[in-house]
Amino acid sequence: MKILDGKQTSAALKEEIKAEVLKIKSAGGKIPHLAVILVGHDGGSETYVASKVKACEYVGFKSSLIRYEDNVSESELLAKIEELNSDDDLDGFIVQLPLPKHIDEQKVIEAIDYRKDVDGFHPINAGRLMLGLPAFVPATPMGIMTLLERYQVPTDGKHCVVIGRSHIVGRPMSVLMSNKANPGNATVTLCHSHTPNLKEITLQADIIIAALGKPEFLKGDMVKDGVTIIDVGVTRLPSDKTKSGWKLYGDVAFDEVSPKASYITPVPGGVGPMTIVSLLQNTLLSAKNEIY
Amino acid sequence: MKILDGKQTSAALKEEIKAEVLKIKSAGGKIPHLAVILVGHDGGSETYVASKVKACEYVGFKSSLIRYEDNVSESELLAKIEELNSDDDLDGFIVQLPLPKHIDEQKVIEAIDYRKDVDGFHPINAGRLMLGLPAFVPATPMGIMTLLERYQVPTDGKHCVVIGRSHIVGRPMSVLMSNKANPGNATVTLCHSHTPNLKEITLQADIIIAALGKPEFLKGDMVKDGVTIIDVGVTRLPSDKTKSGWKLYGDVAFDEVSPKASYITPVPGGVGPMTIVSLLQNTLLSAKNEIY
Repeated sequence: MKILDGKQTSAALKEEIKAEVLKIKSAGGKIPHLAVILVGHDGGSETYVASKVKACEYVGFKSSLIRYEDNVSESELLAKIEELNSDDDLDGFIVQLPLPKHIDEQKVIEAIDYRKDVDGFHPINAGRLMLGLPAFVPATPMGIMTLLERYQVPTDGKHCVVIGRSHIVGRPMSVLMSNKANPGNATVTLCHSHTPNLKEITLQADIIIAALGKPEFLKGDMVKDGVTIIDVGVTRLPSDKTKSGWKLYGDVAFDEVSPKASYITPVPGGVGPMTIVSLLQNTLLSAKNEIY
Repeated sequence: MKILDGKQTSAALKEEIKAEVLKIKSAGGKIPHLAVILVGHDGGSETYVASKVKACEYVGFKSSLIRYEDNVSESELLAKIEELNSDDDLDGFIVQLPLPKHIDEQKVIEAIDYRKDVDGFHPINAGRLMLGLPAFVPATPMGIMTLLERYQVPTDGKHCVVIGRSHIVGRPMSVLMSNKANPGNATVTLCHSHTPNLKEITLQADIIIAALGKPEFLKGDMVKDGVTIIDVGVTRLPSDKTKSGWKLYGDVAFDEVSPKASYITPVPGGVGPMTIVSLLQNTLLSAKNEIY
């Protein structure tokens, strides 16, 4: 059993990005620049945004944090997006989700110029991903593909079972794993809440991508020997065994499943750390005009 | 065994569209208008385009056929698309594919205003389909979904196996069948040329969508009793048993498979006739501003 170590891999990637930024700098080029719009003071969002800004600083990107209070109007937010769209210094920007209920998230997502949409949420990027064209890939699927690539996990001709059909993880993963590419070229089964015989299907899987958000859902008796496990779930539950009083759980019962696995991502330290570095990669790709 | 009769269903749909056009007319509304750009004189393309124009006339749409010789330049074609994009009388238009090799098809597809892209090939429409948003769905997948709907074929919780990952059939079918919708909500396995154990998978399928383009590929021993079969393949092979000297073959060995099937589409007369009527439906949807 081999751990797919997201912490180590993302750290290595950050060093690579940092080195590339230094090269750009010394050649007199423009420093990659990411902006983040944060609305309100949601605890989770504050944490994510702080990590993103910190990661930018670490690799030498320029970053801008644009804050609004909860009561910002949709039109004010859209006007800012319009401004960022035409800001030539900016390579990419994201609007941290979720947004307050009076703002139409889909409208906000579609207002972002797809060429700066480093979150990969715009329909054009989703469509280009589906059509196998260069696109900004959402951070979590991108991070998973990078892990598979770096660890040279075989995917071609394998049976990959994706559990969960969310727009930002399950659905794009199902497309990426079946696209004509490497990693990719897998036979992919997409399962979800309407799948009646999940265990029958997971037992056939060479690769399982669990992204349903149910702590320790995937048990040892649901997988075959030699399986590769990608655990996307992160659920925080109260615990009296940790100092913080909280413990993070993945969608996979690690202790039961890992003895049967060829490769497995831990929680924490697996997929999670890969997401922020994927955002950095997308920003760098944008700065180098490698997607558009 | 029930035949999913595309000829009958498409004929019924055409009458419904015709009735709706009459209603629009009598209310003094604008007649739906579809334009088709045809480059060169490819035999297949000529036939398809003629059928499309004829179908428009039948339901009372206005149609325009714009022809170019094989040697038209890419820039001339793009200029015409620009003109059609801003023609307010036009609800939708398509560029018949394939195009001559000196023209970049992807560039042409992306030049079409997605709000008039009734072929559903533009990345925005592909992305919106993937995200479960209103979109122009490509004709063949749309025709299949309509057949499933009209015959009330159960799909929720069923295991649907799609064979073939083309951008215009297999891939969008895999998305549509697994989207949260009815028809839809199926567990979907997407198989393709890199799938090593296809028979093992098709034997588990409640629904098989065969779109690989290999005549009579799916045999009787590859399906279970009660399966629903959607045969997208159309291959024309020489035959000494027909007057024309040609015979059409689907991807399914109909004589072997049909006795085991609950529902099955014949070739010809199944999926084929549904494609043109889907184009009419998309044009009508556009005229009524129901997508955008």
